[in-house]
Amino acid sequence: MAADPTLAQRLLDGDRRALARAITLVENEDPAGYEVVREVYPKTGRAAVFGFTGPPGVGKSTLIGALTKARRAADRQIGVLSIDPSSPFTHGAVLGDRIRLTEHFLDPGVFIRSMANRGALGGLSEAALQAALLMDASGKQDVFLETVGVGQAEVDIIDHADTVVLVLMPGSGDSIQALKAGVMEIPDVIVVNKRDHPLTDTMVREIRGVLSLAPQRGWRVPIVKTEASRGEGVDELVEQIDAHRAHIESEGTLSERRRRNLHNEVVALAAGRMRRRLEESLVEDAGFAQLLDEVVARRLDPASAARTLLEKTGAEV
Amino acid sequence: MAADPTLAQRLLDGDRRALARAITLVENEDPAGYEVVREVYPKTGRAAVFGFTGPPGVGKSTLIGALTKARRAADRQIGVLSIDPSSPFTHGAVLGDRIRLTEHFLDPGVFIRSMANRGALGGLSEAALQAALLMDASGKQDVFLETVGVGQAEVDIIDHADTVVLVLMPGSGDSIQALKAGVMEIPDVIVVNKRDHPLTDTMVREIRGVLSLAPQRGWRVPIVKTEASRGEGVDELVEQIDAHRAHIESEGTLSERRRRNLHNEVVALAAGRMRRRLEESLVEDAGFAQLLDEVVARRLDPASAARTLLEKTGAEV
Repeated sequence: MAADPTLAQRLLDGDRRALARAITLVENEDPAGYEVVREVYPKTGRAAVFGFTGPPGVGKSTLIGALTKARRAADRQIGVLSIDPSSPFTHGAVLGDRIRLTEHFLDPGVFIRSMANRGALGGLSEAALQAALLMDASGKQDVFLETVGVGQAEVDIIDHADTVVLVLMPGSGDSIQALKAGVMEIPDVIVVNKRDHPLTDTMVREIRGVLSLAPQRGWRVPIVKTEASRGEGVDELVEQIDAHRAHIESEGTLSERRRRNLHNEVVALAAGRMRRRLEESLVEDAGFAQLLDEVVARRLDPASAARTLLEKTGAEV
Repeated sequence: MAADPTLAQRLLDGDRRALARAITLVENEDPAGYEVVREVYPKTGRAAVFGFTGPPGVGKSTLIGALTKARRAADRQIGVLSIDPSSPFTHGAVLGDRIRLTEHFLDPGVFIRSMANRGALGGLSEAALQAALLMDASGKQDVFLETVGVGQAEVDIIDHADTVVLVLMPGSGDSIQALKAGVMEIPDVIVVNKRDHPLTDTMVREIRGVLSLAPQRGWRVPIVKTEASRGEGVDELVEQIDAHRAHIESEGTLSERRRRNLHNEVVALAAGRMRRRLEESLVEDAGFAQLLDEVVARRLDPASAARTLLEKTGAEV
């Protein structure tokens, strides 16, 4: 289980193939991947991590493509990590999005990677952070995390970011309702993509109305109108995300956020490991199948079955 | 920790106050609540459990109100369990929804209850199932579960239902995109509320397009147009949810679903209990604070910290 020492070193030297290889190890939950993260971890914490969330189809990838272009013009090294949802039937929308990043595929200053959700969401969130740490260690100065969807699982991933950007477009009524009802957390920056759409200004007003009800946290959430496919509004977005970062750095919120996120990450990793061990131990367990039969037959209730299970596996109850 | 024997018995006899009391115990994670569930569990499994999901503001509660009226006309006993999201700033939308159920507050054949999400989502999903079991045991023939939002946490709750109904309205573009991208699972029945809206038919066509891409599972997902506030389309919805239930009963899918859901419930209860124990053990733990300091200082990586944590707490690694 000793890590390939040259892999970590090559990654720190900015070798793209080493970075790709290390992320694959992490994604496959190979212990060697965690070993690489362990080795390079002291060199992390320097990248600015931006998280992009919002419903599918609003143009997040196009926007990240445009931001990447702007950052590259300033000679910054970029990492992009897209988290794809597990789909029972089609990945069309997501594949379409990926294509929009192709113009950066040949730029050695840009590293683009997709990670697929293979069902274990907690696991994916952990793996996403590990991959982001690897990009950070390899010298990427900006890391863009992108998720599709706006549920709790995506929030867990996006929580690894220093700055959270919510991307919407006219037609994103559900997301605005979710913000309004408090189901979705208030992000740091909101983008309304498709700025030429006739309903864009109505939507911006609606969002402002929702934000005016939110408690003030010392940062006024800016709403930026973009037309990502033509690069319009991207300069303003760059300004706003930089302003947010400067704000959290000067207020000390950045280190608070990172401490809280690292706390959550450690607990999630530990809890996830316990849960996986438990699930693995049940796969071939005839005793558990019997226990479940009792539950299905309504002779034993689920909570009592869970207690019996924990006693049997010797885990603390 | 012995349960009040009369509480379980009174609940089985259909006493509303006993039901309310038992749900409160479960919601407060009082061990006595789980004791009541244990006692009445053999009498469960008879209710038809319907789950309603969809973005906030589409009229789920109004629809459930209308369905309740229709079911009461057939003299069926109804339980309604609404799961409210935790809101950082406003519960306005949700409170507004609750009001729409008031006409049934005085009907002894209807039991309505809200449960609030107090942050621990896994915990809320467990508590929701326990509450649904209590309603079932008390003689409710139809149990309507309602969640606000469409994320993974809501899916976990709605998975306790035998039939899942997704409620949308014109403007629910985000949800349709999420269905299309495979981020959201295909429900059993889809309702488009606000059938008089000029964009309703366009939306129905869009949904049909998405459904045509999904693999056929032997059940053709019906799309029902309703105007819940006037009770229009509710009869057709009743027909469709009954048809779905008859379908899963005759195909044997109902018992398969219930077995899978009970399996997940037992594992989630066990894993949640392990996680809570872990979190509780960390609150005042100076050793963990030091461990976290090391992580924040980038001297110790999160995965190694998690491993150390599990070793220290004596949990299996």
